[in-house]
Amino acid sequence: MPPVITSRHNPRVKQAAALRSRKARDARRQTLVHGPRETLRAIQAGAEVVEAYVCQELLRGADAAQAQAALQSSSADVMTTTPEVFERLAYGDRLDGVVSVVATPRRPLPGLGLPPRPVVAVVEGVEKPGNLGAVLRTADAAAVDAVVLADPVIDLFGPNVIRASVGAVFKPNTAVATTGETLAWLEGIGVPVYATRPDAAECYTAADFSAGAAIVLGAESTGLSDAWRVAPTRPIRLPMHGVADSLNLSATAAVLFYEALRQRPSPGGAVG
Amino acid sequence: MPPVITSRHNPRVKQAAALRSRKARDARRQTLVHGPRETLRAIQAGAEVVEAYVCQELLRGADAAQAQAALQSSSADVMTTTPEVFERLAYGDRLDGVVSVVATPRRPLPGLGLPPRPVVAVVEGVEKPGNLGAVLRTADAAAVDAVVLADPVIDLFGPNVIRASVGAVFKPNTAVATTGETLAWLEGIGVPVYATRPDAAECYTAADFSAGAAIVLGAESTGLSDAWRVAPTRPIRLPMHGVADSLNLSATAAVLFYEALRQRPSPGGAVG
Repeated sequence: MPPVITSRHNPRVKQAAALRSRKARDARRQTLVHGPRETLRAIQAGAEVVEAYVCQELLRGADAAQAQAALQSSSADVMTTTPEVFERLAYGDRLDGVVSVVATPRRPLPGLGLPPRPVVAVVEGVEKPGNLGAVLRTADAAAVDAVVLADPVIDLFGPNVIRASVGAVFKPNTAVATTGETLAWLEGIGVPVYATRPDAAECYTAADFSAGAAIVLGAESTGLSDAWRVAPTRPIRLPMHGVADSLNLSATAAVLFYEALRQRPSPGGAVG
Repeated sequence: MPPVITSRHNPRVKQAAALRSRKARDARRQTLVHGPRETLRAIQAGAEVVEAYVCQELLRGADAAQAQAALQSSSADVMTTTPEVFERLAYGDRLDGVVSVVATPRRPLPGLGLPPRPVVAVVEGVEKPGNLGAVLRTADAAAVDAVVLADPVIDLFGPNVIRASVGAVFKPNTAVATTGETLAWLEGIGVPVYATRPDAAECYTAADFSAGAAIVLGAESTGLSDAWRVAPTRPIRLPMHGVADSLNLSATAAVLFYEALRQRPSPGGAVG
């Protein structure tokens, strides 16, 4: 049993806490994962956990025991801390006993495997980590085959995305690319491409997702770039009946992903 | 032109800022509305704005001018503040120049007007203001005819709900009631009642929303109470294909509300 880290100034703790900044994450190609469940999902998805900090007094959640077991049988360097030291590492109110340092997975577009007639989602320029995380979580639930982050302004593996996706971001079916690369890649797949735009003439219910499709979602404030105003990309919209002229990005994604699932005979070999 | 409030210790500013606490909101039956758009929607929905604090240096957003005009022609006492005083009133990063004190609307269930064959949503015991706000915003967009908050643990008109709903909470088609009252009320409407449960046998795509329906959603952590395990309430679920066993409450709501809209011939007289 290794000694308990009791000092907030412990150099490893300081180095781990520095991963809150994107600059440090990019430079070291590592990220911080908060929570036993999220750590467990990272391990299950094959991500490399470099080290983990566990605080026994704070450990909670249904996945705590499983996460600990998974950490012990991984190559991760597992350390124990006092609650005071753990607080230095923890994110906001996420005091649930596990924080791990994970090697940031590489997600090139060419490496993305797809089943026949895939439904893929493209999210361009999303601004809020919470929204991206929610989109990834819903994509996972609705059996979307792949999610491509095009021209991102935020970090796919940022701690807030990991948190909001409840770890679903670690599934290997994500990729990061430029919008140009994404357009070329979509052409190669040969599925209809539906671009979500508030000013589209066609309602999403006219879209045919049954033989695969790409669902393209734009940034919260600016929407999709003009690069998506090309044939054969088809603009679609959700009806908006209320006082507001827009819907939250993650709500739009949920409606479209589940409509695609509803239309598909049997998505990606998954079971319901 | 009234003098600009320059002191953070101004008694009215202090009294307004106190409305951040639920206790003060309940005692005075007033709430705080942050933002020009949210204030505008409150006024448009007929809510009584008691007073408003405007900071010209911080005013921004497409609705700023409209909100100011609406405030000037309302009975509200409009005051001007310095940025320092405004910060004391503002919520987090919402420094967009308008904070108003609004008389909390009363929302009894018997007062709820409904069109024929209504689609109504019931949200029981929701815990997170952000989730409730998102559900209200999506309900508004998807032409849901009424939203009933059953056995609430949070405040329908809390500042975070107002914010997350982008002001949609002020629409008059909301009500607050006990679960018992809600069940009795639903019986009176005579629409099929669908209760969302992760363990339901039936998929939501088997539900018939076309002649009106009630969509019942439970709390994030505990789900629906056993009061909803009564005939003729029908349990339904969303398919979950991923690593997670649940979907965010607002994502679930979005899928169901838009599926209801898709099935309806012409919802509540609204246009798409």
